[in-house]
Amino acid sequence: MEQPSIAEAGRLLRAGQTTSEALTRAALAQIARHDPALNAFITLTESRALADARRADAELKAGTDRGPLHGIPYALKDIYDTAGIRTTCHSKLRVDVVPEADSAVAAQLAQAGGVLLGKLATHEFAIGGPSFDLPFPPARNPWNRDHVPSGSSSGSAVAVASGMVRMAMGSDTGGSIRAPAAYCGTVGLKPSYGRVSRRGVFPLSTTLDHCGPLTRSVEDAAITLQVIAGHDPLDAASADVPVADYLSGLQRGVAGLRIGIPRAFFANAQAVTQEVLDGIDRTANALRDAGATVEDVTLPDFSVFSACGRVIMLSEAFAIHEADMQSRPQDFGAVAFLRFILGATVTGADVIQALRLRRELTDAVNATLDRYDALITASGLAPAPRFDAPAEASAAASPLQTIPFNVTGHPALSVPVGLTASGLPIGLQVVGRPFDEATTLRIGRAVERLTGWEDIALPM
Amino acid sequence: MEQPSIAEAGRLLRAGQTTSEALTRAALAQIARHDPALNAFITLTESRALADARRADAELKAGTDRGPLHGIPYALKDIYDTAGIRTTCHSKLRVDVVPEADSAVAAQLAQAGGVLLGKLATHEFAIGGPSFDLPFPPARNPWNRDHVPSGSSSGSAVAVASGMVRMAMGSDTGGSIRAPAAYCGTVGLKPSYGRVSRRGVFPLSTTLDHCGPLTRSVEDAAITLQVIAGHDPLDAASADVPVADYLSGLQRGVAGLRIGIPRAFFANAQAVTQEVLDGIDRTANALRDAGATVEDVTLPDFSVFSACGRVIMLSEAFAIHEADMQSRPQDFGAVAFLRFILGATVTGADVIQALRLRRELTDAVNATLDRYDALITASGLAPAPRFDAPAEASAAASPLQTIPFNVTGHPALSVPVGLTASGLPIGLQVVGRPFDEATTLRIGRAVERLTGWEDIALPM
Repeated sequence: MEQPSIAEAGRLLRAGQTTSEALTRAALAQIARHDPALNAFITLTESRALADARRADAELKAGTDRGPLHGIPYALKDIYDTAGIRTTCHSKLRVDVVPEADSAVAAQLAQAGGVLLGKLATHEFAIGGPSFDLPFPPARNPWNRDHVPSGSSSGSAVAVASGMVRMAMGSDTGGSIRAPAAYCGTVGLKPSYGRVSRRGVFPLSTTLDHCGPLTRSVEDAAITLQVIAGHDPLDAASADVPVADYLSGLQRGVAGLRIGIPRAFFANAQAVTQEVLDGIDRTANALRDAGATVEDVTLPDFSVFSACGRVIMLSEAFAIHEADMQSRPQDFGAVAFLRFILGATVTGADVIQALRLRRELTDAVNATLDRYDALITASGLAPAPRFDAPAEASAAASPLQTIPFNVTGHPALSVPVGLTASGLPIGLQVVGRPFDEATTLRIGRAVERLTGWEDIALPM
Repeated sequence: MEQPSIAEAGRLLRAGQTTSEALTRAALAQIARHDPALNAFITLTESRALADARRADAELKAGTDRGPLHGIPYALKDIYDTAGIRTTCHSKLRVDVVPEADSAVAAQLAQAGGVLLGKLATHEFAIGGPSFDLPFPPARNPWNRDHVPSGSSSGSAVAVASGMVRMAMGSDTGGSIRAPAAYCGTVGLKPSYGRVSRRGVFPLSTTLDHCGPLTRSVEDAAITLQVIAGHDPLDAASADVPVADYLSGLQRGVAGLRIGIPRAFFANAQAVTQEVLDGIDRTANALRDAGATVEDVTLPDFSVFSACGRVIMLSEAFAIHEADMQSRPQDFGAVAFLRFILGATVTGADVIQALRLRRELTDAVNATLDRYDALITASGLAPAPRFDAPAEASAAASPLQTIPFNVTGHPALSVPVGLTASGLPIGLQVVGRPFDEATTLRIGRAVERLTGWEDIALPM
């Protein structure tokens, strides 16, 4: 059941043709219908949501308009602190944790009049999944329940792809927004490092973590970013960089833009599928037809980005979890524990080398972006594998095509570009200059339109 | 034999009352007289220096004036690359290395008309010393040859303190400019992190390394900084922050300035001597009499700064030397090898925690500097120990009172404030706001005048 876009819902709300309560009840109905089979939600905040919706309606009626998210239902990955609502990280270790304060983003969205429907499934601590040994079941891909939705923002992608909400917040440390967006056929935006506050969001790897939205459309993502972008002195990584207008340029098209394709990132990978390659070539041709210059470019080897990111992630994550791993190892799921324990093998010199490499890789991407407005590349090498696929095969199929831009901090957007013959979504990644989310979203909007994705019906 | 100050030498040069060649010959004579007993120089570039001096004289005569260092003799710590002149790092591993290009600072000083006299002793790789198992002997303290000059910029401090040069460049990773400046009775300036390029200077610990001058007077340091300060896109740490006028404010005094003393840094340390405490109190009183507000302030515990800095230094240094330590361990001196090998025990998580702590400590110092224009604290806890003092006693006496400001990157200046009863210098540290070397030097200049240090004759 397709919900109206955020912009359209806003028009209907302000024209008196719908209410926030009606939007919220429709969302709750969709959740009631599909979530028992999809497990997107860990915690549903139904009565609170209805109260918030009625307050949003009363405010609008009284002339108080909080902007484009006023009265719009949404949900949060369950690593975002929410005052008075448990925030579990999908882990036995935090199953009873009820924060006293909202995360920065939760507070911004509440201030903007958004209606929080609940907290969403994730891989445990944003890394350990999909897993069946956790206190909550793993979310499932709505295009085919036997296939994984990817992660770690699994519930966020599933909730959007199944029409439960138009927007759900995720987090992205190596691809945890963009990968599930690609597997589930949603839009997923990892803004520039420092653009959106991570305060009150449980960290996986502090210098790689980004907060961002998963949405049904690029426009929905732009509307959300407009609300949550900004400087937060209480997040050490937050950048005091002016916020742009992310909406007005969306429809400008791509004529005159220069777009590079770092083809070696994906084209030489063993696991890449012909349908992914075709999706990129089809998109590149459509962008050329629309007036963009699209050329192959060379970046440092993908494996160098990947190794750099993994060393940083493993050591930062281990630093966070080491004490709990010693005192209550039995409470971690197996996947999270095995991934975290790898961090114990990383030496200080490894981290130092990775941090030096990180600067060089960032410089290399920026040098290319001096000559191009943006890059396009694969979001993943293949569509979503089955839950029962061998772990090695799944890992080989998904060597985090997304992690280079966590290492470098560039804004990166995953946009769906079509379905495979077997009916699973394929995503494509658009990467912009530092803090130029506006151009990134503008190209994403063109891709969405040119590939016809906006006309593809949701699976339910 | 006291040389004229850099400013006075400049006046004499331009008045035709001396020549660069005469200044250079006087310096060479002082070196010939004293260096056999002091070992400040590893490589003397006598004939090149005389040629450079004659060219400087010819240029001035022809109306080409390169500024305040035109024709002024100086020397470089032997970790600064010099094109065509061996750069040994005081190590058997690099005893034959002749760089093809100048370090950034060497190029700046040459461009400014400085006359390079040679390359100076250091602790091996800026960490391993004082040592007697290296290809060159350790430099000795000119106030008493049985006492260490401290390091690692040992030769730089000795060359200045013994009247060989008015200025020598050093480097400072945990105190390697300020500690020898304090032990030898010279001025030593560690500028803000990012203020002076480190390009072409052999690294010890990339995120803690700073380049700066050791000089006879604060004015000499200000003149030198004016020449070498500036942005270098080829040094990843270099900051694009406007360079101030470091000279015009030097004589303004301290009336109206607010100065904090983080007394717990040194007053509670076991090894602190009464003469060091008296030196600080005497200086504080003199600053008060001159119109400054001087108050005790509280910073995070010194041991936290120290541990943070040591973890970063050990791991960064090990990352640089690991390959050589495996392939040719016998070529390292024992002290450097034992210090570097400690880096192998540092884990990735240790580094991550240290980097996080570093941000917190920097924030804490900045919060204090919101309320104070600068800090004063000890440069060291005691005067220079004897070469034959037990290593443990020397270490205990010198727990790097200087390292906090390598961790945080604040500008820090060591200024002599007097002599002990046994005739050894005592230094005091002035710490400024980020990139505010101007105020740091201005306070240093007041301290120099108020404590009467400028009237104390050099030991030779």
